[in-house]
Amino acid sequence: MPSSLVAIFPGSFDPPTNGHLDLIVRGARLVNHLIVAILQNTQKSALLTTGERAEMLKEISAHLPNVEIDFFDGLLVDYAVRRHADTILRGIRAVSDYETELQMALLNRRMRPEIETVFLMASAEYSFLSSRMVKEIITLGGDAGSFVPEAVMRRLQTKFPAANKR
Amino acid sequence: MPSSLVAIFPGSFDPPTNGHLDLIVRGARLVNHLIVAILQNTQKSALLTTGERAEMLKEISAHLPNVEIDFFDGLLVDYAVRRHADTILRGIRAVSDYETELQMALLNRRMRPEIETVFLMASAEYSFLSSRMVKEIITLGGDAGSFVPEAVMRRLQTKFPAANKR
Amino acid sequence: MPSSLVAIFPGSFDPPTNGHLDLIVRGARLVNHLIVAILQNTQKSALLTTGERAEMLKEISAHLPNVEIDFFDGLLVDYAVRRHADTILRGIRAVSDYETELQMALLNRRMRPEIETVFLMASAEYSFLSSRMVKEIITLGGDAGSFVPEAVMRRLQTKFPAANKR
Amino acid sequence: MPSSLVAIFPGSFDPPTNGHLDLIVRGARLVNHLIVAILQNTQKSALLTTGERAEMLKEISAHLPNVEIDFFDGLLVDYAVRRHADTILRGIRAVSDYETELQMALLNRRMRPEIETVFLMASAEYSFLSSRMVKEIITLGGDAGSFVPEAVMRRLQTKFPAANKR
Amino acid sequence: MPSSLVAIFPGSFDPPTNGHLDLIVRGARLVNHLIVAILQNTQKSALLTTGERAEMLKEISAHLPNVEIDFFDGLLVDYAVRRHADTILRGIRAVSDYETELQMALLNRRMRPEIETVFLMASAEYSFLSSRMVKEIITLGGDAGSFVPEAVMRRLQTKFPAANKR
Amino acid sequence: MPSSLVAIFPGSFDPPTNGHLDLIVRGARLVNHLIVAILQNTQKSALLTTGERAEMLKEISAHLPNVEIDFFDGLLVDYAVRRHADTILRGIRAVSDYETELQMALLNRRMRPEIETVFLMASAEYSFLSSRMVKEIITLGGDAGSFVPEAVMRRLQTKFPAANKR
Repeated sequence: MPSSLVAIFPGSFDPPTNGHLDLIVRGARLVNHLIVAILQNTQKSALLTTGERAEMLKEISAHLPNVEIDFFDGLLVDYAVRRHADTILRGIRAVSDYETELQMALLNRRMRPEIETVFLMASAEYSFLSSRMVKEIITLGGDAGSFVPEAVMRRLQTKFPAANKR
Repeated sequence: MPSSLVAIFPGSFDPPTNGHLDLIVRGARLVNHLIVAILQNTQKSALLTTGERAEMLKEISAHLPNVEIDFFDGLLVDYAVRRHADTILRGIRAVSDYETELQMALLNRRMRPEIETVFLMASAEYSFLSSRMVKEIITLGGDAGSFVPEAVMRRLQTKFPAANKR
Repeated sequence: MPSSLVAIFPGSFDPPTNGHLDLIVRGARLVNHLIVAILQNTQKSALLTTGERAEMLKEISAHLPNVEIDFFDGLLVDYAVRRHADTILRGIRAVSDYETELQMALLNRRMRPEIETVFLMASAEYSFLSSRMVKEIITLGGDAGSFVPEAVMRRLQTKFPAANKR
Repeated sequence: MPSSLVAIFPGSFDPPTNGHLDLIVRGARLVNHLIVAILQNTQKSALLTTGERAEMLKEISAHLPNVEIDFFDGLLVDYAVRRHADTILRGIRAVSDYETELQMALLNRRMRPEIETVFLMASAEYSFLSSRMVKEIITLGGDAGSFVPEAVMRRLQTKFPAANKR
Repeated sequence: MPSSLVAIFPGSFDPPTNGHLDLIVRGARLVNHLIVAILQNTQKSALLTTGERAEMLKEISAHLPNVEIDFFDGLLVDYAVRRHADTILRGIRAVSDYETELQMALLNRRMRPEIETVFLMASAEYSFLSSRMVKEIITLGGDAGSFVPEAVMRRLQTKFPAANKR
Repeated sequence: MPSSLVAIFPGSFDPPTNGHLDLIVRGARLVNHLIVAILQNTQKSALLTTGERAEMLKEISAHLPNVEIDFFDGLLVDYAVRRHADTILRGIRAVSDYETELQMALLNRRMRPEIETVFLMASAEYSFLSSRMVKEIITLGGDAGSFVPEAVMRRLQTKFPAANKR
């Protein structure tokens, strides 16, 4: 019987989207403490620094008292153990997502059987939404306003004035 | 912040398999109270009565104090509301599962936004296991012993002596 | 160069859903004449008569001057030839849809190469919607009001008073 | 090192299609002895008797000296053991096929680890072809001539004169 | 009612394949004007310059009076608006294609609801064909002659003499 | 009738996993001679040299007299012809695998119709296992001990002492 369920919601969040926010809100209802963990991955061509992403995530989850923003590198399951988390929370949008997620969940279980991965389906209106696509729209000068929270859009416009022009 | 999370694990359980038991054990760790709810569906050609399934489920989950066995008919979300459940727990094995589950989860959310559907991936060793296939093996006189819990097998052998003969 | 494109939108429409209406509206913009063709299939356990479905489809597409409601039986491609149609219009929601649709499109092309099958993706908000699920909700006494057009709901409530009770 | 590989190619073959023939020809090249095994399944609404299917299969594989036509019922793996077969041969056309096939292969391996299931991909030109669809075309009075071997078509036309009329 | 339907068929076409040509021929029958639009993407490691691809596409579509070859960069929907196009035409080969295409179609619709994305299924014989694989075959010195139109092969052989040697 | 079936099992094997070993053991039972062929691909960021991979593969398959370890570059089908192989052996784990494998198999058949591609399903317990994921675990300092054969682990620990530390 869970006295105090702690979950990790890991991701790149480059940038945080409406889909991420939807999952954070829904996930926060299911656990006592939700750690949104930004992957420190220096290899990928990032739009935003991890510091900028953390600030955006803090702003959009400010109304959720049991949500914490953190960073991690190395193996996710090792980080989960360090943070005394019981579960990893993941969203699934599409079949291709599903397969990768399944592989990672089974691999993580083999390494750390005590940590359960729990999945939520993306809401229908966000099922097509990915950071990668939002990043591409912004890079091509398009308007990403309907895909990210307002607070994220405001900060993106400051950093990428072109994203503002339409 | 969840003070007392109640989840429904719905299914036909005709018969309960090792895959079901695995999900019940894992699900019971995530919530305060887990209701395993047997669908009362008179249309489908059943192997077992719902009463027999309930007895089997009770026996295999006897060591889990926060698991309850119940029956339901009508819409799942209406039953969830009646039982004051917050979440519906579902297992996913394969891509075809995933799509049906996604449709049901989105439909249920549209009807009852306050009830969240939460998914666990089937363990690798049970990823190929379904009640339908176990039922077919038993009907064809095969040995289903490695696919169902021992207590289920014992009861199946009493009811279907042919399943015992190999 | 198409002087006058005629398309068939075939289906069971038992009942017509918001997803069907969305595809009819979008399809009608792409062709000169759109024939919504109800499959006369006596085998399946139907909720509505084909006459009732036709009346519902006529009411919800009354504002679209280039849409016609018709019936067909036998092979779809033979019907398309009889109606001098150039294309078959189909909606896709999910991967499992996609595969069946692909098989039928390739089979139809082999039989009648002059008839092209054209696909539209279901809108995100209707991606989980199917007549089969709406039918089940109504049968179980649930509220299908957010899944079908208002005119369809009104007629369903007359026929199935239980669908009205919530 | 296989001295004498025996394979079972199981199916309903109701009717045998060009896709089946393609797999029989290709499979016969890989093994010493190929047993095409017709499932004796009295439940399904069949187009042809199993005797008719066997005659068709014999005629279209007459030029392949290492192919045998046989019948089976009960569990496929039990039949394979009785026939001293080492492998089960299956064709895959689509993703939905793939999942069912994967489940059956894993289940069969669990029951009889000594019998290997081997898969061939359907040829591109037959990827959309299924007995079920051919059966439907014939039932609806369509021309299935480009989907089944000539010998099968000749026998179908004798049995279903309507299939000949176009 | 469409008086003059204009469609964009976007792609990299590096190189144009038999699958592309098949879709151009079929698409040109469905619309009044078809714009084959080559993505100006300087990042990807290209086999051919966009100028070379345009010349190849012009040669293989010379017999189609309503087909135009053009270039675009930036967001596809913005280009479609600039060209007064009503629809985007896309081909689908496989499930993994389907998912990416679905995401892009839904995203584009959110940004420009007036532009419809229309899908054609790849012909069975081209279902396995991609520019990426053709590119790899040419790079590895293989014979791509049965995968690209003759005019494309001739130009490829001039540019990559090794592709000619077998 | 095959007098002497020769199969190629191609791959990167960077590193060889338990899943690879499982397929080598099962494949070796089906053919007279099995050539495990390491792709010489200088572009990808490799964990191990092809020489190291060959040594590992030789050690873990030393008990299988009809297995040979070799290298190849260029087109796989050309290599198969040079080695007088009749078949290419491939394992499939997931739907996304399946699609890529299908495309390659159809492409290879078009280029060399005399060479058949034969598929085995990955065992349930290795269905989530890929060299890419093992590589990532090792790179991140995790323990890959339950994913690779003991002989591979020993050599990996010598090369990457960090992989040993937990």
